[in-house]
Amino acid sequence: MRVFPNLFAAMVPSPSPPTTEWIALPGHGYHEVIVDSPGHSDNPADFSQEHMMLLLQAYKDRYSHYCCLDDVNYVSIFKNWGREAGASLSHSHSQIIALPIMPPLMKREIDAISAAPFCPFCNIVMREISSARAIAENGSWVQIAPFYSQVPYETWILPKSHISNLMEMDERQHCDLASLLRDALRRMRDLLNNPPYNLMIQQIGSGYHMNIRIHPAITKIAGFERSTGVFINPVSPEQAAAEIRGA
Amino acid sequence: MRVFPNLFAAMVPSPSPPTTEWIALPGHGYHEVIVDSPGHSDNPADFSQEHMMLLLQAYKDRYSHYCCLDDVNYVSIFKNWGREAGASLSHSHSQIIALPIMPPLMKREIDAISAAPFCPFCNIVMREISSARAIAENGSWVQIAPFYSQVPYETWILPKSHISNLMEMDERQHCDLASLLRDALRRMRDLLNNPPYNLMIQQIGSGYHMNIRIHPAITKIAGFERSTGVFINPVSPEQAAAEIRGA
Repeated sequence: MRVFPNLFAAMVPSPSPPTTEWIALPGHGYHEVIVDSPGHSDNPADFSQEHMMLLLQAYKDRYSHYCCLDDVNYVSIFKNWGREAGASLSHSHSQIIALPIMPPLMKREIDAISAAPFCPFCNIVMREISSARAIAENGSWVQIAPFYSQVPYETWILPKSHISNLMEMDERQHCDLASLLRDALRRMRDLLNNPPYNLMIQQIGSGYHMNIRIHPAITKIAGFERSTGVFINPVSPEQAAAEIRGA
Repeated sequence: MRVFPNLFAAMVPSPSPPTTEWIALPGHGYHEVIVDSPGHSDNPADFSQEHMMLLLQAYKDRYSHYCCLDDVNYVSIFKNWGREAGASLSHSHSQIIALPIMPPLMKREIDAISAAPFCPFCNIVMREISSARAIAENGSWVQIAPFYSQVPYETWILPKSHISNLMEMDERQHCDLASLLRDALRRMRDLLNNPPYNLMIQQIGSGYHMNIRIHPAITKIAGFERSTGVFINPVSPEQAAAEIRGA
């Protein structure tokens, strides 16, 4: 497994300043590509337990490198699989973008968490583990179809214990996550015929409950979604969970 | 031109109630399809002035029908052109979805407008009309590449005067909008080779400055955008405006 600076970086350490009368920040940051596997045609759904643990270790290592930098306020780790999901390379890869700001979607989550009397994600884990939206679980992780699924067959993977990021995983959690993630990718491939997808790791330094979101890219984000922020999803999470459990 | 109830309606007048322990609203509302043109292969970029005025009249008529209903809080009018932009029919069409709620993106705009000492859209019109992001204008409308362009070659069309919705247009504004919109669609088709796009009309009953947003769908919304709300756009609005002006 190898990690490279992205050739077409969205963020660079020394950007040229924007010239404008409105407020714009320079694109200061870092943008890396993680080559997930040596084989050009390898599908992550086939990764061995050892391979998946290594990939998670790479995520963890690069996260821990960036999260402590003075000029970084958020570290986004994500994987686009398939052209329809935005992958411009067919060789399996992940990306890391370290940003100088807390991005708006994460900021809204943090605000909501601060305003809640308990951790909303702990609550989700507790309630959903026995709901019709539960898909799979092992010792330390659970996979669900979220109640507010934006896209058909969206799933979330959450740790049962309240950890903020990958660095806080112990060996057992690391091993269990690799196992559940392999299972999740295999089921999705089998059920939806190797669909394009986005896999996104949501985590911050502290005061958060990390989670991984997988969005199969089998529907389009069109005019209605773009202009309203409301998502039309024809598959209920209960239906999605039932189908994924059976895959 | 004909208007039909959508065969696969996202909202219906009498939905079955959701059964869940979390808060979910029934999908109460209305969903129509406007067949823009009698010809199956007609491209909106070729519509005559008379045809475009008729289409805008249809938008206005259907908006005025829905906006006053007691069970409607927002009327979304949009057009998806091309499969990549989410159009499931190739015959040129627009859609109207009448919602029982004010959608989140619109709600945030309204909150921002309420908090501002002046209308942000009036300010945009005034500043941008002579900026490097200006594209075209006529007596009552202006087209710009917005400072915060989410996607390459995104453009906005705004009325010079502060009107909240299509119903407040006078004859002159109606005629000028048809003219500018035709020009905008023709330029986009010529410059970007008939790209897929989403055209979205943002309007509410009062206290707003209506605007039309056109997003060419030539890039994908991928993992980074979905998880952060930050959009990577490799084409600056100044560059986009220059190219569109020259088309």
